[in-house]
Amino acid sequence: MRPIRAVIYGVGSMGALIAPMLLGKGVEIVGAIARNPGKVGRDLAEVAGLEAAMGVIVDDDAARVLGTSGADIAVVSVGSLVGAMYDHFRVCLENGVNVLTIEEESLYPWLTSASLSAQLDALAKRHGVTLTGSGIQDVYWVKLVSVVIGSMLQLERVAGRAQWNIDDFGPEVAREFRVGGTREDLQQAASVDGWYSPTVRNTLDALAAEVGLTVERSHARVTPVIAAADVRSKSLAQVIPAGRVSGLVEAVRIETREGPTLEFEMTGRVYDQPSDADTSEWLIRGEPGEVKLANAGYSTRLLTGSVVANRIPDVLNAEPGLVTIDRLPPARYRPLPLGNYVRR
Amino acid sequence: MRPIRAVIYGVGSMGALIAPMLLGKGVEIVGAIARNPGKVGRDLAEVAGLEAAMGVIVDDDAARVLGTSGADIAVVSVGSLVGAMYDHFRVCLENGVNVLTIEEESLYPWLTSASLSAQLDALAKRHGVTLTGSGIQDVYWVKLVSVVIGSMLQLERVAGRAQWNIDDFGPEVAREFRVGGTREDLQQAASVDGWYSPTVRNTLDALAAEVGLTVERSHARVTPVIAAADVRSKSLAQVIPAGRVSGLVEAVRIETREGPTLEFEMTGRVYDQPSDADTSEWLIRGEPGEVKLANAGYSTRLLTGSVVANRIPDVLNAEPGLVTIDRLPPARYRPLPLGNYVRR
Repeated sequence: MRPIRAVIYGVGSMGALIAPMLLGKGVEIVGAIARNPGKVGRDLAEVAGLEAAMGVIVDDDAARVLGTSGADIAVVSVGSLVGAMYDHFRVCLENGVNVLTIEEESLYPWLTSASLSAQLDALAKRHGVTLTGSGIQDVYWVKLVSVVIGSMLQLERVAGRAQWNIDDFGPEVAREFRVGGTREDLQQAASVDGWYSPTVRNTLDALAAEVGLTVERSHARVTPVIAAADVRSKSLAQVIPAGRVSGLVEAVRIETREGPTLEFEMTGRVYDQPSDADTSEWLIRGEPGEVKLANAGYSTRLLTGSVVANRIPDVLNAEPGLVTIDRLPPARYRPLPLGNYVRR
Repeated sequence: MRPIRAVIYGVGSMGALIAPMLLGKGVEIVGAIARNPGKVGRDLAEVAGLEAAMGVIVDDDAARVLGTSGADIAVVSVGSLVGAMYDHFRVCLENGVNVLTIEEESLYPWLTSASLSAQLDALAKRHGVTLTGSGIQDVYWVKLVSVVIGSMLQLERVAGRAQWNIDDFGPEVAREFRVGGTREDLQQAASVDGWYSPTVRNTLDALAAEVGLTVERSHARVTPVIAAADVRSKSLAQVIPAGRVSGLVEAVRIETREGPTLEFEMTGRVYDQPSDADTSEWLIRGEPGEVKLANAGYSTRLLTGSVVANRIPDVLNAEPGLVTIDRLPPARYRPLPLGNYVRR
């Protein structure tokens, strides 16, 4: 066995978190890609806030890095939607590099970006590599929920509720969620363009696929969380005045052809109280009754990183194409260096 | 596809629960086996408290039922240990009938009954059939916990705690747990023969196997729950006086060769307060932190039945031998009649 060679594609908050996790799991980091001029040309370790230099210089020429580094896989943490990510994925696939991404729509993009999904699937197959989306939702909101559903004789309703700290994911995410804006800004953004919640919608699409249900209709709703008092946002390095948006509640409800409904409501907001904590709670209702599933005590951000690390061997072992998590077994605990789990 | 044909082997509290669940999933019940003279010769529906007669007469001759009914599988709910169950399993296997059992040690008997496990494995292979143990622990205390562990980069400690109502499982179980006895009775039973807790120990053995850990040492402890006031036991149809045993806390701690420790503490007692409820709580600690996993709102008894029903196609599809759940994927939601999921 040889170490897995990975490229960190996107060196924001999440890329910087994942890089040392991969090193700790025996993965060799052979390249780093970013556009930000403040990062390009610097050592990845310095950009990621690590102690020792890594000898990996952040580069803004993705094709050069992917074409010359001999990478097995690119861990892509750039945007949130397949449309915006298509070219990033394409350059990886065309260079014969597998892709594991935390871009949220890619968890299960078949329904929401059918045409791009088919193109990415064909491109990946043509180059003999795999593209998979993962993150905390893979383990905690799809596989874990589906295991509980696996104890049901008949399923009626699945309803999830999760909370996460917008401030954990860097300034881009805070701005994307309109933190600091007015209620009217958000309402306008939601009414003019629609408001698409890929983490919520595509998690439910993945869950439906995982348990063999067919999505028929979906209903989405976004409502602002308004700061009751001034709130300090670390990621934006500013104070959000009382009365401004400090977060969002994104909710999606899916009706399936087979009958069961799937709901998920996710609150992302800037935490400001010591008692604020990430939580995930699901209600699974059917025969022979109802089951509550809850997770607490964790960090959404850290688990997104660790799940991605543990998923790398699954992606390298998968058949070529766009392979969504419903076609993979649950992520496994990998005590040895990750290269040991790759079939060569 | 044709319906699966099942024999209900053991028509106590659990057999009577599982029979209608199987009917509801399109399984044909082709035989019922029990020893109790009060049940033998009666229609299974009557014994199980169902409305319409089923035309299946409870028989005490296991070989006759298994040899003539054309059964695919026997759902065996008789005892709690492989030693006591060996002959029951043997008669099924020798008649070419697959076995799915809620007998607790069989969830993972390889370490605690190594020789009997090897014999059952060989016997099952010789007859081309499969023997598997399942129940609520399969989904909630093994697969679900292992999925959470699958999000960890490094694992340090897994600690579970569950509570169940002894009164839900019939008078045999209540007597086995010394309900109504004195603290001294229990202490003597525990000190003279040892006290073996198959649900706890074999669940941890299965969990270790599921996540790739090697059991090195185990420590077990049993302590009585003493009734603070008189408690009515429905299953025993008697009042447990204050000061007598109304339940047990069974705890096992396992050390593994790889380092992580696995602990599970299970409290079974006669519920007597409206707030008493089945619960399951796990703490998974390691890198990148700690995660709490909790289930509530469910019935241990009902989920044991539904998990067994959902597991039937997995057992019929498995290779011959003693196939423990670590070698099976998680139980799945099966919306159609179970026969649809069997590969013929």
